[in-house]
Amino acid sequence: MNNSYNHSLSANSQLAQKSVNRCFDGEQHYYSHQSTSTKTSMTFSIYLPDEALAGRRCPAVLYLSGLTCNADNVTHKAHFQQKCSELGMIFIAPDTSPRSSEDVEVPNDERYFVGQGASYYVDALQAPWAEHFNMQSYIVDELYDLLRSEFPIDSIGITGHSMGGHGALLLGFKFPGKFVSVSALSPVCAASESAWGQAAYEAYFGDDKSLWAQADAAQMIEKVGQQYSSILVDQGAADDFLAEGQLQTSKLQHACEKTKQPLTLRYQAGHDHSYYFIQTVINDHIEHHWRMAQLS
Amino acid sequence: MNNSYNHSLSANSQLAQKSVNRCFDGEQHYYSHQSTSTKTSMTFSIYLPDEALAGRRCPAVLYLSGLTCNADNVTHKAHFQQKCSELGMIFIAPDTSPRSSEDVEVPNDERYFVGQGASYYVDALQAPWAEHFNMQSYIVDELYDLLRSEFPIDSIGITGHSMGGHGALLLGFKFPGKFVSVSALSPVCAASESAWGQAAYEAYFGDDKSLWAQADAAQMIEKVGQQYSSILVDQGAADDFLAEGQLQTSKLQHACEKTKQPLTLRYQAGHDHSYYFIQTVINDHIEHHWRMAQLS
Repeated sequence: MNNSYNHSLSANSQLAQKSVNRCFDGEQHYYSHQSTSTKTSMTFSIYLPDEALAGRRCPAVLYLSGLTCNADNVTHKAHFQQKCSELGMIFIAPDTSPRSSEDVEVPNDERYFVGQGASYYVDALQAPWAEHFNMQSYIVDELYDLLRSEFPIDSIGITGHSMGGHGALLLGFKFPGKFVSVSALSPVCAASESAWGQAAYEAYFGDDKSLWAQADAAQMIEKVGQQYSSILVDQGAADDFLAEGQLQTSKLQHACEKTKQPLTLRYQAGHDHSYYFIQTVINDHIEHHWRMAQLS
Repeated sequence: MNNSYNHSLSANSQLAQKSVNRCFDGEQHYYSHQSTSTKTSMTFSIYLPDEALAGRRCPAVLYLSGLTCNADNVTHKAHFQQKCSELGMIFIAPDTSPRSSEDVEVPNDERYFVGQGASYYVDALQAPWAEHFNMQSYIVDELYDLLRSEFPIDSIGITGHSMGGHGALLLGFKFPGKFVSVSALSPVCAASESAWGQAAYEAYFGDDKSLWAQADAAQMIEKVGQQYSSILVDQGAADDFLAEGQLQTSKLQHACEKTKQPLTLRYQAGHDHSYYFIQTVINDHIEHHWRMAQLS
């Protein structure tokens, strides 16, 4: 392929480039690398607008995906590329957990909300999960540093969908020095009070509920208090998972009210939990992160 | 789900609704129906903007997909919904061929460019293909009439990608009374001169090259002459299939020059044959069909 803008990695880069496709005025790239946090190979996608391909520092947004997803779902279905091309924004989508491969056997669970595809972006504390399931460290330390060393990134915001919305809120408030902005789509707002999260935290943390509370986004916000000038959350009003109590959006609203963390919370009529909803609101989230980056 | 805008089918509709998802200000629907043309069940997707859901007649664009695809690829990856929502445009994506099911065994070929997923939108003339592979009749007669009877469609334009771009050009010029506008993305412009099309036409038509010529888009344009005030074609300049001679874009350009059919042909630097390219240019195609519909 004729990619005149193609990005150059560092001389001894840990990254192996898997694919490059031109998309709007930029390129969609995929990379794999051996992770020290998860002790597996990890794959992420990154959209680089031409400004970044030309070496100019750009704001970036890190998108954490939901249960069962990998980097492909959001990269193929969310349609962030057009807005990122227009604004000159980098968009990074990591995987949702370590995965088994020919080289390494990673624990799993037959329930889709525990194990591979369901890390909840925490560092697991008990066997058999603790060896590989260290996604908090992977995201906020290892991948974060790798991205900053390999790409012309100015500042990083964090967002995500569903379990990834939980991850964005949790990590955004736990590590506010790392991120300039936070938003979430259909987030699991109180993982320790949702059936999905309870099953996962029993596996990853055991019975000590104080550990669950430390990995609950709403409780994290209550604990650390206001950190951002505003955060943006979109939620489909016809989302079945909201009705069945997996998302606990009211807990997020309560935590933000209590701490005076400004929250723009939008319930979107008729919308469900799918990528059709994600694509409907993603541009507003990219613009939110863009504006916050300008202010940072 | 709470879909207050949901479309009502006719009383004795042949259509079975498979899914509904709200997306921007409209809904993405899927339907299946038993086809008399293909003697199989056929599935298509249709995006209905709120104007259509409220019963107002809207212009529609029929999108024919490329080799190996079904309705899902474009519906998930092309990102037409936002522009169709903004303009009030209906977008329909049929399957690329009949398919085997529990009820019916449809012929196939181990080559991805012949058989299921590779109809070329023609009516096959020889065994074993002729029984089911009648996609020209399916598109321009059966589905066309079904869409007009079940949805508030004002006028219909036709577009498509790769093999589907061939289909859009071929059917658009063979049946200009049916369509108000034509465009194509990375089209196979001269199927009878591409290795893909030659293999398929040998299967569907046999050795009579005069039959191949009647199913060649560039030759059809030369035969019927100018039909539209303008047509729009986008082609990735870094598309490997262009380099290897499958697309024959120059044949289209020659046919349009010869017949004085106005053609906007854009070679897009660095772009390949993928859905990353499709999403980059799809909005311009929707706007093209929208403008032509206003003039019709």
